[in-house]
Amino acid sequence: MTALVFIESAHPAGRIADPNTPQLSVLDQGVTRGDGIFETAHYRDGAVRKLDAHLARMRSSAASVEITIPTEEAFRTAVNTAVTEFLKEYDDAASVTLEAAVKIVVTRGAEGAEHGTAWVMVSPVSKSILEQRENGIDVMLLERGYDSTVADRAPWLLMGAKTLSYAVNMAALRHAHHHGADDVIFVASDGLVLEGPTSSVLIATEVDGVKKLTTPILETGILPGTTQGAIFAAAEKAGWELGYGPLEPHHLHEADAVWLVSSVRLLAPVNKIDGTEVSRNEELHRELQGLVDQIM
Amino acid sequence: MTALVFIESAHPAGRIADPNTPQLSVLDQGVTRGDGIFETAHYRDGAVRKLDAHLARMRSSAASVEITIPTEEAFRTAVNTAVTEFLKEYDDAASVTLEAAVKIVVTRGAEGAEHGTAWVMVSPVSKSILEQRENGIDVMLLERGYDSTVADRAPWLLMGAKTLSYAVNMAALRHAHHHGADDVIFVASDGLVLEGPTSSVLIATEVDGVKKLTTPILETGILPGTTQGAIFAAAEKAGWELGYGPLEPHHLHEADAVWLVSSVRLLAPVNKIDGTEVSRNEELHRELQGLVDQIM
Repeated sequence: MTALVFIESAHPAGRIADPNTPQLSVLDQGVTRGDGIFETAHYRDGAVRKLDAHLARMRSSAASVEITIPTEEAFRTAVNTAVTEFLKEYDDAASVTLEAAVKIVVTRGAEGAEHGTAWVMVSPVSKSILEQRENGIDVMLLERGYDSTVADRAPWLLMGAKTLSYAVNMAALRHAHHHGADDVIFVASDGLVLEGPTSSVLIATEVDGVKKLTTPILETGILPGTTQGAIFAAAEKAGWELGYGPLEPHHLHEADAVWLVSSVRLLAPVNKIDGTEVSRNEELHRELQGLVDQIM
Repeated sequence: MTALVFIESAHPAGRIADPNTPQLSVLDQGVTRGDGIFETAHYRDGAVRKLDAHLARMRSSAASVEITIPTEEAFRTAVNTAVTEFLKEYDDAASVTLEAAVKIVVTRGAEGAEHGTAWVMVSPVSKSILEQRENGIDVMLLERGYDSTVADRAPWLLMGAKTLSYAVNMAALRHAHHHGADDVIFVASDGLVLEGPTSSVLIATEVDGVKKLTTPILETGILPGTTQGAIFAAAEKAGWELGYGPLEPHHLHEADAVWLVSSVRLLAPVNKIDGTEVSRNEELHRELQGLVDQIM
């Protein structure tokens, strides 16, 4: 089901491995310190979508945490090898409509090691993700603890880097699940809307026929969303206006539609925020869906 | 050099493994999400010191992150097995003065797995740690981004749980090293002194012959330090006064001595804070050293 390929200089095409047998050392700081970075891309229609943007963000994360990463060519080769390996289990007919999650990870490696550990993993998209795309999600607003200006003055907090240290993101999701919600939108301590634990926030408004997409400003320390970026690029071409926050919770309630967007789940329409229904404009959703489908 | 023992129900005494060969799955959420908890205890004088306190804190961390952990007996047995394995490489004469770091880790395991992955690792204490004990450290004050009241209102931030998601702690240490310092003291966004990335802050004052130890209040969301707790217990018996913050940076500069305390490095006397020398009362240090040596 899942294909695994390690990026190692001794194996130019990547080293195919079995994800169900142990592959990592307990000395790897990716494990002992959550000290590594990752990206999750989307395979569909026979290709890994917006791989350029994922690799660019990985370079940016690597610079933040000061980890040396493989070359772009090594990443691309390993991704190809892993996708090919993944597809072997499916016949050609199935693979046309097949989609998958492509996870790329680089850790700092063992303490004192010359280089980190890097791998690509391709796995099926879970059923719950497909359902959330279709049915939408209920979200909870949860405080992220930081104010919206901290990223600039405290680079050691690694705001905007996609590290493996996701325990808080996972705890926030569990908190939401315990309260009957599906997902979370983090809010800064000064009240600004930030992002989801694994997604970007996007709102649409239509006033006098002018359609506008708005997302929180990056200066709040959120992760620059590759899907949000691709949607914005496509929307601009299609004549939408674009806006970058600052957004507050009332803007979500006043919008014509709210989504959490991410690479694999794509558009997850928000049905309720903290138990209160939000507007869900189906026409805007269909239109945005069309833009998402164009992402390469 | 390093001994590794996995805690598994099929192996009541623990499963001895080779730390230099791969032992972990890339599917383990300990790796992919920094989603696990850990403790690092100190082996010296033929025993693992204050193991009770470490196991109690591990139970508390486990409750925060909702991970099921092995029984206390399973932990103790695995620790014994790992220490015995570690000592095999040393002759009896050496092992009398030998010290080691005993790391206990429990991850959430693979997605959907019935139980997590748990292991104990015993390894030598690094030379730099021994040197810092002796020579002291220069520290930098760095903002932690949170205010000192966030722990209470936002449990999903996992303040006070010792998780594997340490990327920010490691980044703060790198930031300090780049600026010529050895370590960090985190400060809340409202100015209160918190803790080091891997240690607790302790200050001593002596006024009219009355000696007092003070540490930041736990309500700021810091980790309850097992070493700080043990020192406080010993100091109280020895007639010291004890105090719990709130501490601000000026309190550090006004103290007669400042330490970062942790299980393996023990007492690291602070020489400078942000480049400014702080008082280093050698008599108080010797006295505190005597208390630390009593910790069982």
